[in-house]
Amino acid sequence: MLLESLRQQVLWANREIARRGLAPHTFGNASGIDRTGGKALVAIKPSGVDYADLTAADLVVTDLEGRVVEGALRPSSDLDTHTLLYREFGEIGGIVHTHSEFATAWAQAGRAIPCLGTTHADYFHGPVPVTEALTEDEVREGYVRSTGAVIARRFREGGLSPAAVPGVLVAGHAPFAWGRTPAEAVEHADVLEYIARLAYRSVVLGAAEGGIPKHVSEYHYLRKHGPKATYGQGGGR
Amino acid sequence: MLLESLRQQVLWANREIARRGLAPHTFGNASGIDRTGGKALVAIKPSGVDYADLTAADLVVTDLEGRVVEGALRPSSDLDTHTLLYREFGEIGGIVHTHSEFATAWAQAGRAIPCLGTTHADYFHGPVPVTEALTEDEVREGYVRSTGAVIARRFREGGLSPAAVPGVLVAGHAPFAWGRTPAEAVEHADVLEYIARLAYRSVVLGAAEGGIPKHVSEYHYLRKHGPKATYGQGGGR
Amino acid sequence: MLLESLRQQVLWANREIARRGLAPHTFGNASGIDRTGGKALVAIKPSGVDYADLTAADLVVTDLEGRVVEGALRPSSDLDTHTLLYREFGEIGGIVHTHSEFATAWAQAGRAIPCLGTTHADYFHGPVPVTEALTEDEVREGYVRSTGAVIARRFREGGLSPAAVPGVLVAGHAPFAWGRTPAEAVEHADVLEYIARLAYRSVVLGAAEGGIPKHVSEYHYLRKHGPKATYGQGGGR
Amino acid sequence: MLLESLRQQVLWANREIARRGLAPHTFGNASGIDRTGGKALVAIKPSGVDYADLTAADLVVTDLEGRVVEGALRPSSDLDTHTLLYREFGEIGGIVHTHSEFATAWAQAGRAIPCLGTTHADYFHGPVPVTEALTEDEVREGYVRSTGAVIARRFREGGLSPAAVPGVLVAGHAPFAWGRTPAEAVEHADVLEYIARLAYRSVVLGAAEGGIPKHVSEYHYLRKHGPKATYGQGGGR
Repeated sequence: MLLESLRQQVLWANREIARRGLAPHTFGNASGIDRTGGKALVAIKPSGVDYADLTAADLVVTDLEGRVVEGALRPSSDLDTHTLLYREFGEIGGIVHTHSEFATAWAQAGRAIPCLGTTHADYFHGPVPVTEALTEDEVREGYVRSTGAVIARRFREGGLSPAAVPGVLVAGHAPFAWGRTPAEAVEHADVLEYIARLAYRSVVLGAAEGGIPKHVSEYHYLRKHGPKATYGQGGGR
Repeated sequence: MLLESLRQQVLWANREIARRGLAPHTFGNASGIDRTGGKALVAIKPSGVDYADLTAADLVVTDLEGRVVEGALRPSSDLDTHTLLYREFGEIGGIVHTHSEFATAWAQAGRAIPCLGTTHADYFHGPVPVTEALTEDEVREGYVRSTGAVIARRFREGGLSPAAVPGVLVAGHAPFAWGRTPAEAVEHADVLEYIARLAYRSVVLGAAEGGIPKHVSEYHYLRKHGPKATYGQGGGR
Repeated sequence: MLLESLRQQVLWANREIARRGLAPHTFGNASGIDRTGGKALVAIKPSGVDYADLTAADLVVTDLEGRVVEGALRPSSDLDTHTLLYREFGEIGGIVHTHSEFATAWAQAGRAIPCLGTTHADYFHGPVPVTEALTEDEVREGYVRSTGAVIARRFREGGLSPAAVPGVLVAGHAPFAWGRTPAEAVEHADVLEYIARLAYRSVVLGAAEGGIPKHVSEYHYLRKHGPKATYGQGGGR
Repeated sequence: MLLESLRQQVLWANREIARRGLAPHTFGNASGIDRTGGKALVAIKPSGVDYADLTAADLVVTDLEGRVVEGALRPSSDLDTHTLLYREFGEIGGIVHTHSEFATAWAQAGRAIPCLGTTHADYFHGPVPVTEALTEDEVREGYVRSTGAVIARRFREGGLSPAAVPGVLVAGHAPFAWGRTPAEAVEHADVLEYIARLAYRSVVLGAAEGGIPKHVSEYHYLRKHGPKATYGQGGGR
């Protein structure tokens, strides 16, 4: 079986988003990529299988174009979004798609999440961006692939770095988050939900849309990500 | 005992709505119908019995007019709504009535739930409709039966299909959901609550009342229900 | 030990409000009354004791004026509210004071809970009333006793029956609920919280302040309380 | 090992804020101080260690200037806030920093929590204050130390007593709470979250910003804190 270690990580990530309540009704999926071989390979959840029943062997392995390399089941219907993001964002190693409740509410409202506090600033450099709605042409050309395309365009046009902004809201749909590994993608998806929940309540209480002062958010972001990072025992994150 | 298999399904459905928190304080009930015999028979929860104590033998079996065919206990006080819906909606096989919290809040506000995202679009074709309030005459003629009648009228006048719109909000009361089986009715009641919760928060965040673009919602609905359905391992749902 | 059976009921009621999350941080207490002897006797929680540690023997027994008849511990600091309500509302047998979260939010907002749905109508005849704030004189004369007095006045002036309206919101404070027994008082406190939570969300969604039509709410109230009650297996409630 | 007993209290406090859900994602820390020796010593959580793995020996002991006296790990990145507060507030013995969700939402909105009910009045004398945002200079001079400084300034300029107001919201960040012991600091952090949650919902329902009448809040505060305190079995708290 190809990619034993990656399969274990992806299996864990799929189960973990269910366990943490980020993927109610099995709405969600996780994938990981191995870029070390001659040809990058993606491991992803099969479509419509319950998280409880999932095994490492059930995962589907595809190439970067989404062609199945190993696996008896049909890959997640969101596969084309994952592979497009792996092609566009060369530094990421794992992607998690959830329907977590508050992040999805912001996505349904079509609103970026403003940076209203230091937790947000620790994880996301600037607002959590929201894509545009897909046009009629984009839906016709392939809804799932176009979902990846509008995310990539949002980052390109906004000059955003996937390392500094590890997630996005797809308008009228739900969030995607990523990281250097599937586990980090899960952590970012979970923190994104926490941020979304806090921001919802802060906005109801009248928080300023502009968010916290830039000198505060920059301090926090660099505290955890810059060369002088001071958080944790390591020196990095 | 009549309808052993249907009784088991209906028993499960009644317990499941309690277990999932959709029927707080035993506010709720589930039924199923067997249309295969010469005469259609309905199995429904008895009135005022705790879900924990319920057995298959406690269920009450009636005909389509609500006449008890088998059972020592009084049927659910909502029986006449169930039987009217089974008469009007020939394709449904199970009905679930809940007081799940967010769906009930929309019902109490007398508002249809707009289609604000892809999860909604996957399950409901268009908004989740809300009935009119019952008139004084309708209450006098029979509150429970009239509840079924205002639902049926809402579907007839709105040109709605019970297969495409598997649930409804009764104004000032609570939701009903249905499906081809009691289990599918439970799933639809559960997803309806999830949709209602998301929509509540999206509306607070200023989501457009019009909802997501029609070309997106149509894509999603047909992805799961059309002849070219691509979701899951089956090919259908 | 006096009142063994009542003590057991009151012990259960005190533990149950904690178990159901209605009395966070031990903010709450329950009492019961025995009116069968020559002299009515009240059993109530002692002050500041954790629900987990409470035994039937810890309960304090007082007369209707609040004089301790049996018990080594100091009675709940809310005793004078309980005894005043037992004197004013001759038909009630148990009282529960909670700080359940949504009912308390309505109390803090100083708003009565309008009847927005059938669940409300099944349990409360009309809105859940809110008292006036205590005046400076009333606080000086005795805060706890005056709390009972403003409740009694609210019912007297509003022409409300404690049997038809089994609970109240004390403005800027929290709810009280009652019933024929301590157990029924717990049930009413629990349903009040459910009603308050639903109404909160309904109001956010723009529910009409006037509530559901009177012919609907009357139907529901009488369905469970009138001489022709049809709910449950009994014939009464 | 220094300060065995204090270490146990601080260990408990750190674990307890996680167990009660006040420190999601390990966002939070607790400390305690021993002022009985010739030189005051602070015990605090090490940085970036999971609550589940934490032992009493992992805690870091520093002096009032934050110099490590005992401990192999790096102290919490928030140490300088804790030590500044211990220097400024001579009567406190424990500090808890959380990111509890509703208190943090108020902090992110930059709003003090008005006293809307008796529970608030029992624990906080007046509104829960909110600091100003840190200026660019304050961030440059040391974000963490300046966080303590803006808290201290808020109390000094507002004429507030840390004994009467056992917590604060740092604008755009999160709450700090304190008490005579680490355990009391945890209790205050927990009650602060409860108060914040109630106030959020009360404000949505239109609660008057001015809060409850002063004669009511004074009564409640003095009931638990004044020389004539009547709550609990003791006579004090």
